[in-house]
Amino acid sequence: MLQTPLRFSQDILKKSIVQGDHVIDATVGNGNDTTTLAAAVGQLGKVYGFDIQKDAIEATKEKLLLTDLSSQTELIQDGHENIQHYIAEDETISAATFNLGYLPSGDKSIITQPETTISAIEQCLTRLRKGGIVSVMIYSGHEGGQEEKEAVSTFVTQLPQETYQVLEYKYVNQKNNPPFLYLIEKR
Amino acid sequence: MLQTPLRFSQDILKKSIVQGDHVIDATVGNGNDTTTLAAAVGQLGKVYGFDIQKDAIEATKEKLLLTDLSSQTELIQDGHENIQHYIAEDETISAATFNLGYLPSGDKSIITQPETTISAIEQCLTRLRKGGIVSVMIYSGHEGGQEEKEAVSTFVTQLPQETYQVLEYKYVNQKNNPPFLYLIEKR
Repeated sequence: MLQTPLRFSQDILKKSIVQGDHVIDATVGNGNDTTTLAAAVGQLGKVYGFDIQKDAIEATKEKLLLTDLSSQTELIQDGHENIQHYIAEDETISAATFNLGYLPSGDKSIITQPETTISAIEQCLTRLRKGGIVSVMIYSGHEGGQEEKEAVSTFVTQLPQETYQVLEYKYVNQKNNPPFLYLIEKR
Repeated sequence: MLQTPLRFSQDILKKSIVQGDHVIDATVGNGNDTTTLAAAVGQLGKVYGFDIQKDAIEATKEKLLLTDLSSQTELIQDGHENIQHYIAEDETISAATFNLGYLPSGDKSIITQPETTISAIEQCLTRLRKGGIVSVMIYSGHEGGQEEKEAVSTFVTQLPQETYQVLEYKYVNQKNNPPFLYLIEKR
């Protein structure tokens, strides 16, 4: 009955995105979020998908072709801290997603980093419309994951409550650092 | 778009209760949960409502009469740590709700207490069916609230993950100890 953090996030995102919206997938990875987002924004919308790894971009490009979702998707092989180089500050987005950690099928030593992650979240928040959602799935079981979790937690809990609502959605009785979710909504 | 903890809890409870179920309102208070639960279980179901305060019981009795929900509701003026005196151990419930702290309209020195709260949660879990939900809204801004919050948090995070899923649903960037939610689901 209770949804996993990942499923809950997908549900909230689907409810807050409408056809024609612009959104950001800040960690393309295996492309699951990218295709979900591309379906949600439709052919009039736009998904900007960022990943530093060529493998992730290539695999996702293929997935988008197969699902006929390429036309509304721009895949960018660059770190998400460079969002500003691709999306103007006054371009409004309705959602952004982050799946922190490493690419499940890839090189597990290539991981997201606290500073660049937080910089990317900030750049998404700058462009976020009122009522829009930034979703951050925290995976902290890997080396370096704990530090990133703490840095992101500190950052999101300090966001001003006049402008943002930050929800933590977390299973608290599981061993081995299960993934959990932050949802940031702009008021 | 994001739901408050209280609204999210009500939503989950409505989804997990069906007509004919037996449920427990462990803190009747102003009777809001009691009427919601009574509507959900219907005339074939049963709500056991506990409150130590006569005022709460009387006000809720009236509310139930007005909404024609009396027949499926048994109001019990006793502490929820005495659930075992009213409900047999083998009677199955599908849900239980707790709103910790004090009665909003009442004497703010009468508050729920860590030991009796935890004992009552345990008694609810014993009777909970698989897939059933125990909802605990934590209010910790009052004197004694912090201690109760810590005791309940320690208790629920130690529940075995083989038998229970414990979800924390919490706004993390708000001042003044906003209420938050634990949902315990039996696997």
